[in-house]
Amino acid sequence: MFDLRPIGYVIGLLIAILGATMILPMLVDLAEGRGHWSVFLESSVITMLSGGLIALSCSNGLRAGLNIPETILLTSGVWVVLPLFGALPLMLGESELRLLDAYFEAMSGLTTTGSTVITGLDGMARGILLWRGILQWLGGIGIVVMAMVFLPELRVGGMQIFRAEAFDTMGKILPRATEIAAQISVIYIFLTLACMLCYVLIGMSFFDATVHSFTTISTGGFSNYDMSFGRFTGPAEYVAVLFMILAVLPFVRYVQLVNGNGRPLLRDSQVRVFVGMLAVLVAVVVFALMRSHSHPFEQALRESLFNLTSIITGTGYASADYMRWGPFFIALFFFVALIGGCAGSTTCSIKIFRYQLLFSSIRVQLQRIRTPHGLFTPRYEGKPVPPETLNSVMVFFVFFFVSLGLFSVALSLTGLDFVTALSGAATAMTNTGPGLGQLIGPSGNFAGLNDSAKGILILAMLVGRLELMTVYVMLTPAFWRA
Amino acid sequence: MFDLRPIGYVIGLLIAILGATMILPMLVDLAEGRGHWSVFLESSVITMLSGGLIALSCSNGLRAGLNIPETILLTSGVWVVLPLFGALPLMLGESELRLLDAYFEAMSGLTTTGSTVITGLDGMARGILLWRGILQWLGGIGIVVMAMVFLPELRVGGMQIFRAEAFDTMGKILPRATEIAAQISVIYIFLTLACMLCYVLIGMSFFDATVHSFTTISTGGFSNYDMSFGRFTGPAEYVAVLFMILAVLPFVRYVQLVNGNGRPLLRDSQVRVFVGMLAVLVAVVVFALMRSHSHPFEQALRESLFNLTSIITGTGYASADYMRWGPFFIALFFFVALIGGCAGSTTCSIKIFRYQLLFSSIRVQLQRIRTPHGLFTPRYEGKPVPPETLNSVMVFFVFFFVSLGLFSVALSLTGLDFVTALSGAATAMTNTGPGLGQLIGPSGNFAGLNDSAKGILILAMLVGRLELMTVYVMLTPAFWRA
Ligand SMILES: [K+]
Ligand SMILES: [K+]
Repeated sequence: MFDLRPIGYVIGLLIAILGATMILPMLVDLAEGRGHWSVFLESSVITMLSGGLIALSCSNGLRAGLNIPETILLTSGVWVVLPLFGALPLMLGESELRLLDAYFEAMSGLTTTGSTVITGLDGMARGILLWRGILQWLGGIGIVVMAMVFLPELRVGGMQIFRAEAFDTMGKILPRATEIAAQISVIYIFLTLACMLCYVLIGMSFFDATVHSFTTISTGGFSNYDMSFGRFTGPAEYVAVLFMILAVLPFVRYVQLVNGNGRPLLRDSQVRVFVGMLAVLVAVVVFALMRSHSHPFEQALRESLFNLTSIITGTGYASADYMRWGPFFIALFFFVALIGGCAGSTTCSIKIFRYQLLFSSIRVQLQRIRTPHGLFTPRYEGKPVPPETLNSVMVFFVFFFVSLGLFSVALSLTGLDFVTALSGAATAMTNTGPGLGQLIGPSGNFAGLNDSAKGILILAMLVGRLELMTVYVMLTPAFWRA
Repeated sequence: MFDLRPIGYVIGLLIAILGATMILPMLVDLAEGRGHWSVFLESSVITMLSGGLIALSCSNGLRAGLNIPETILLTSGVWVVLPLFGALPLMLGESELRLLDAYFEAMSGLTTTGSTVITGLDGMARGILLWRGILQWLGGIGIVVMAMVFLPELRVGGMQIFRAEAFDTMGKILPRATEIAAQISVIYIFLTLACMLCYVLIGMSFFDATVHSFTTISTGGFSNYDMSFGRFTGPAEYVAVLFMILAVLPFVRYVQLVNGNGRPLLRDSQVRVFVGMLAVLVAVVVFALMRSHSHPFEQALRESLFNLTSIITGTGYASADYMRWGPFFIALFFFVALIGGCAGSTTCSIKIFRYQLLFSSIRVQLQRIRTPHGLFTPRYEGKPVPPETLNSVMVFFVFFFVSLGLFSVALSLTGLDFVTALSGAATAMTNTGPGLGQLIGPSGNFAGLNDSAKGILILAMLVGRLELMTVYVMLTPAFWRA
C-alpha cells in the first residue's frame, strides 16, 4: 500500500497557506466596514488549524522524494481537498452558498475555470470578490508549477516533450522543484503587478484592477461584475488581451528572458503558431462582424480581439454576448475553446503543442499512404518526436473527446438540452468558463443548474485541469496494486 | 504525371453498369403504367453511352495493376463521378430535382448516407423510389469491396490490420480483387433476398420489401415514405434490426461461414464488442424510456432496439421521433452515431475496431504512467499491434474530429444554428442520415437547407465514406508529384 503521510504533509501545508491568504480579504472587509470581516477570520482559523493538524499528523512520515503513484495522488489530492477549504468563506459569507455551490465556485476558482454560481456580484462584500480572485490566482501559479514540474515527469498527455527543457534551462542552477516554483512565482507576481498597474492607468479602481489582474494572469476569468468584462469596454479590453496572451506563453521562456536571452521566446514554435492563429481568427471575425453587423472597425476589432483571446486562452471573460452575433460565431467560439494556449503556462484545454504534434503526425501519415516504403518521421521544432510521446498525445486527444462525450451524455441525463450539456462539458473540461445557450452562455450563470449537473461539472473541471490521465490512471486497478 | 487511362477505363465501365441497372426502375414504371418509364430509358441511354465512351477512349491505356496514387484516384473518382449519373433520373423524373439537389440525393444514396431532399415520397413514381434503393444497394456492395480490398492496401486509418486477413482467408483460393468481390457479392445478394423475404412474410408489399431490403442491407436508410420506417411499426422493426446488425458484421466471417467454419464469426472480438455494447445501450434506453415516458415494455424494447440499431449501424431509419424523447436520448443518439459497426462491412463512422485499438492504447498509456519502466504492448485479438497501425488509427480519430469541427463551422457560416450544423456535419461524415433538431432531425428533411450547406454536406458525405485520408491525401502537393 501507499504511505499517504508525505502526501498528507504537503497537502496540509498547502491548506495552511490557503488559510493564511484568507487574511487579505479579511483586511479588505475590515476596511470596507460592513462587518463581514469575521467570516474570513473564522474561515482562516478553521483552515489554518485543519491544515496544520494534517501536516503535523503526517510529519513523522516525511521522506525526500515521492514515487510516481504518490505524485499522482498528491496532484489530484491537492485539487480535490483545497477547494473544500476555499469554499468555507463562500458558505459562511454574504454569498451564502450551500456546500455544493461553494465547492463548485471554489473548484471553478482553483482550476481557473471561472464559471460562477453567484449572482449579484456588483453589490457583494469585497472580501468575497477578492477571495474569488485569490483562488484563481493561486490556482494559476499551481498549474504553471504542475505543468512544468510534475506533468512532464508523469509523462501525461505528451508533456514529457518538455521534460528535458525545464530541467535543461533551469536544472543546472535550480535543480529542485521548489526552486523552479520560486523562480516562476517571481515572474508570475511581476506579470500580475504589471497587469494591475496597466488596469489602474486606464482608469480601473485599485480594487477592480487587483482582482481582475489576478483573474487575467491566471486565465481564470472571474469578474467583480455580473456583466463580466462588459463593464470595462474600451482600452481595458486591449490591456486584458495583452496580459491574457502573456499568461498563456510558455513560462520557461520568461525565465530565459529574465536571464538576458529573449530569442527563445520569439523563436518558440508554440508561440508563433499561437500568435499567428489568433491573428488569422481575429481577421476572420473582424471581417464577419463588419459585414454582418456593420460594426465600425474599432469596435469590431476590439470585440473580436477581446472575446477570441478570452476564449482561446481559456480565460472566459465576456465583453459582449456573442450568442447574439449569430450561428457562425457561436460554432467558431465553441471550437476555438478546444484549442488553448501554450504548454507550461496557466492555460488549459488541448493546447497548441498537441495540435502541432498531431498535425506533424498526420502529415507523415499522408506521406506514408502516398509512398508506403518511404521513411518519414514526425518532428517538433525540427527534432524527431519519439513514438511514445506521440502516442501519449494521441491518447490524450482520444480520451479528451471520449470524456467530452460521456460528460455531455451525463449532463443531458440531468435534463439539460443538447447545446447546454455539450458546451457545459466542454467549457468545464477546458476550464474556460462560459458555455453556450441562454442558461450558461456568456451572459448566463451556472446557478440555475441542478445539483447533479453541478456535481458532474465539478468532476469535469478537475479532470480537465489535471490533463485527464492524472485522474483516470487512479481508476485502474493496477494503480492501487503494490 | 499520372496515366489516367486505366482509372478512366474502370470508372467508365462502372458508369455503364450503373446505366444498365436503370432498366429495372424503367420496368417497374412500365408496369405501374404512369408513363414515367421514359425517364429511365433516357437516363439509361445517356449513362450507358457516356460510360461506354469513357471506357473505350481509355481502353488503349489498360494495364495489369494500379499503383497507390492511382488506386486513390480511382476510389475517390468513382464516388465523385457515379453520383452525377445517378442523379440523372432524379432530375428528369417526377422528383424534378435541380442538379445540386439531385447530386446530393445520389451522393446520399451511393455513400449509403440516406439523408433525403425529396418530400412527398408516398405518392412518388415507383421507379424513383426503386432507383434510390438501387443507388444505396450498389453503394453498399461498393463499400464492402473497397473496405476489404482497397483500404487495407492503402493503409487508411488502421485498415491495414485487416490486410493479411482478407488475403489469408480467401487469398489462396481467390487471389484477385474481382474474385473477392464476386464471393462477397453472392453473400450480399443472399442477405438482401433473405431480408426481402422476411419483410414480405411479416406483411410488407413486395415492392416495399424490395426497396427496404436494399436500403437495410446497405445500411443506407432511404425509405419509400416520408415518415420513414414509422410506417412499419411492429414485427417489421425486429426484422430490420436483425438485418441491420447482419449488415455491419465483418463480411469476411460470412465467407468463412459459407465454407463451413462458423467459429470465427462468433469469436471475432469486433462482433462481440458490437453486440455487447448494443445490448447494454438498449437496456439503458429501455429502462430510461419506461421510467420517463411509461412506455409498456414491448414498445420500449422495440423502439429503443430499432432506433439504436438504426443509428449505431449508420442505417438512419427512424420509427419514432426521438427528438421528442428528451435531452438524454438526443445526446445519446448523437454520440452513438459516432460508434459505427465492424470493419469490412457496409458500415461507416469510426467503427468498433478503432475504439478497440484506441482503448488498448489508452490502457497501455495508463500502465506506463503508473510504471514508467515497464514494457507494455497494445494488442488486438491477442496479437501485438504494430505502432504504425496504431498511429494510423489515432490519426484517423484526430482527423475525424478536426474535420467535424471544420465542417460544423462551415455549415454554421451558411446560417445554420449550432445543433443543426454540428449534427449535420456528424450525420454526413458518419453516413448515418438524420441529424438533430427540427430541420434535419429524424422527422425532418434536408430539402430546406440552402445550397452552400448542401454542397458542404456532399463533401462531408464523400470524405466520411472514403475514410477521410483517401480524400485528404489528394490535397497534399506531394501526392501530385511524379
Ligand atoms: K477560465
Ligand atoms: K445511412
